[in-house]
Amino acid sequence: MPPHVETRRQDLLDGLQQFLRIPSISTLPEHQPDIRRAAEFVAAELGRAGLRNVGLIEGAGNPLVSGEWLEAAGKPTLLCYGHYDVQPPDPLEEWKSPPFDPTIRGDDIFARGASDDKGQTYLLMKAVESLLASRGSLPVNVRFLIEGEEEVGGRHIESYVRARGRQIGADAVVICDTEMFAPGLPTLCIGLRGILYTEVEVTGAGHDLHSGVYGGVAPNPIQAVAEILGGLKGADGKILIPGFYDKVRPPDQAELEAWSRLPFDEVQYREKEVEVAELVGEPGFSVFERAWARPTLEVHGIRGGFTGEGAKTVIPARATAKISMRLVADMDPQESFRQFADSVARLTPRGCRSKATLIHAAGPSLVSTDNRYLQTAARAMTEIFGRQTVYIRSGGSIPIVGVFDQYVGIPSVMMGFGLPDDNLHAPNEKFHLPNFFRGIEAVARYLELLGQ
Amino acid sequence: MPPHVETRRQDLLDGLQQFLRIPSISTLPEHQPDIRRAAEFVAAELGRAGLRNVGLIEGAGNPLVSGEWLEAAGKPTLLCYGHYDVQPPDPLEEWKSPPFDPTIRGDDIFARGASDDKGQTYLLMKAVESLLASRGSLPVNVRFLIEGEEEVGGRHIESYVRARGRQIGADAVVICDTEMFAPGLPTLCIGLRGILYTEVEVTGAGHDLHSGVYGGVAPNPIQAVAEILGGLKGADGKILIPGFYDKVRPPDQAELEAWSRLPFDEVQYREKEVEVAELVGEPGFSVFERAWARPTLEVHGIRGGFTGEGAKTVIPARATAKISMRLVADMDPQESFRQFADSVARLTPRGCRSKATLIHAAGPSLVSTDNRYLQTAARAMTEIFGRQTVYIRSGGSIPIVGVFDQYVGIPSVMMGFGLPDDNLHAPNEKFHLPNFFRGIEAVARYLELLGQ
Repeated sequence: MPPHVETRRQDLLDGLQQFLRIPSISTLPEHQPDIRRAAEFVAAELGRAGLRNVGLIEGAGNPLVSGEWLEAAGKPTLLCYGHYDVQPPDPLEEWKSPPFDPTIRGDDIFARGASDDKGQTYLLMKAVESLLASRGSLPVNVRFLIEGEEEVGGRHIESYVRARGRQIGADAVVICDTEMFAPGLPTLCIGLRGILYTEVEVTGAGHDLHSGVYGGVAPNPIQAVAEILGGLKGADGKILIPGFYDKVRPPDQAELEAWSRLPFDEVQYREKEVEVAELVGEPGFSVFERAWARPTLEVHGIRGGFTGEGAKTVIPARATAKISMRLVADMDPQESFRQFADSVARLTPRGCRSKATLIHAAGPSLVSTDNRYLQTAARAMTEIFGRQTVYIRSGGSIPIVGVFDQYVGIPSVMMGFGLPDDNLHAPNEKFHLPNFFRGIEAVARYLELLGQ
Repeated sequence: MPPHVETRRQDLLDGLQQFLRIPSISTLPEHQPDIRRAAEFVAAELGRAGLRNVGLIEGAGNPLVSGEWLEAAGKPTLLCYGHYDVQPPDPLEEWKSPPFDPTIRGDDIFARGASDDKGQTYLLMKAVESLLASRGSLPVNVRFLIEGEEEVGGRHIESYVRARGRQIGADAVVICDTEMFAPGLPTLCIGLRGILYTEVEVTGAGHDLHSGVYGGVAPNPIQAVAEILGGLKGADGKILIPGFYDKVRPPDQAELEAWSRLPFDEVQYREKEVEVAELVGEPGFSVFERAWARPTLEVHGIRGGFTGEGAKTVIPARATAKISMRLVADMDPQESFRQFADSVARLTPRGCRSKATLIHAAGPSLVSTDNRYLQTAARAMTEIFGRQTVYIRSGGSIPIVGVFDQYVGIPSVMMGFGLPDDNLHAPNEKFHLPNFFRGIEAVARYLELLGQ
């Protein structure tokens, strides 16, 4: 480990813990003050790193945090992206230590946002800070753009970047918000799924009804949601929305072969990572295809009726389901949502009315491996980790990647330092500390190689 | 109105309001102190009425309240049944006045339990009190047995009555816990559906998962619940559990003809009472058959995943559905639950495990019209309301009726004074005050006629 990282180990941990203590949950309005505190924390860190023009960009939504260092004349400009918002921590009772009281156990730090994405955003800032501190200058130009709405669709940054297009002034984006395929295996992510997050509200009778008096006569909106869900996705995992798969671009033969060479033990994955008796999903596709290259439809929760302790015999007047779909290249979010909404309307049983609302949407993205920004990143990762870097995709969504591709025309380099068992969006989220420190080195090395 | 009711009008209202202010919700453990307060209120009222041996009967569950007056030598003994527990009031925000702050608007009193069953239990006590006060004695013998678990299965009273059998010492039961078919139309209920209240828990992965990373690979317990629900009941409302309908006894021709003569406007019922675009349910059966004489399966709520504001992309590790079935004569609750549990197991999709738990059960009941207790009640109701009493069934469940039939061998006389729009188990439950006062008269007249 280079001296500028080694000697500052405790400082780096202290700073990360401070960041992780802020419960900047973007989906819960009561955490708006925490969102602002997190944004201000990031701005302070960028200032400390030595960036110029640091500030909060206000707009419709949570503030973006920006800063820049543009004194490497003739060198490329990298846009460094991360997000300071996090997912809600529930179910709280399953955390072994409180989600916003970062706790180190063994080589891991446990907290909501540890890996997604505060830990990785922080290492990006610290890589730049350590280069500037040790060399007095950077080998390339950098602009930081850190957002606070990634977990809720990233509307602010999307409109900001779309409005500026090429004026954004960068040649590539570097993003640390993905994971390594396996511990110690340097990994670049080249594909992400898009997302449609929706709410489907079903209404039946004008008021809640007694299931004894009206059972057999009145429609039940929860049963209706169940029927709709069963009609949207078959028991075999195939999505039944007409036209939904039409634009799906299958991975090419070379990519499929590369996936087949990845060090992957499906039994281990099933038993230790997913902890499930049987993996499921669309018949005829491998685990990687199902998780990375096929669209999905998942229900996240159904609100309505009675779910407390004990018994209440109610037929509720309404029920609301949160349903998301993941999209893959070359699906179009708007078209896919129309297909979804049409299917929901068609599947709504008699006696009920339904409304499908799009909460947020992001397109899928797929980066070509044929560019120097990606290839140089692979080289830096290989050097630092001592193994050949692999290219993978991720089943998750980072909405901004598609925006940079479509509206700015620049590639995103996704250097991920998370691990598959980091419990993203789940209780006991963690970040592997050796990856935190090596991540700082790898990003710093990437900037050095890019500047040569 | 006889003077003993007329002059005490305000006293009666004051007492009823005091009863309704106690939030004696039997399904919520935190309301245990209120359960006890309600039991003590009932005991105090029975004492005030002039009954002997008034007291609380403790046991496994909420206390029963008993009292007796057995000085009418050679006359029959009536067991007066009611319940002092109520349903939870949620959703609270839909109440126009607080559920436990009884409020009179027009001719109605609004509160949780107003009709089901505090108002009707109170009128039963007040009928006996007014007779004793005005005559100094009762025309028949009475025993009161008021329970506090009707809304959660009535285990205590069931075991109490089963253990005593004919030793309970009564010739018939009188119950005020049902409704009149239409305003002003005196009604006796002769059939009730039984109930199976269950919880089905489905588990998938060992922990909550990120729907991006694992969507397409991991089982989704909420989707599994949806598939199970769709497999238990078809879109046409037919229950698909093998053998479920085998023991259903169809109503005879005379009963069907009597139903067809009831003053019923299906459009009015649909638009004003149920407030729904279309009535649903099993094809080939009338509204009365579907609501009174056919079994049902209804889901009341699904717990699991994320239902808060905004978006969370989680595949939950588990989901729990509250599902009840209403049973009709001659279905057997134990056998029906076994059939249900077998179907749930069979319908559970791969990758998931499920467990069906029976929360409470009660058999259906059907009382023969060929007995003097029922016929005398019809005469009393006809006298007081000035119209011919009709016989109907109810789709709801009063578990104790089946117990009195099966274990004591005595008929239940269900003199109901609720109205179809009383919002039982729903926000803005009410009781029609003219029915409250006439109910007191009708019960008093019933006792007089029975004693002649």
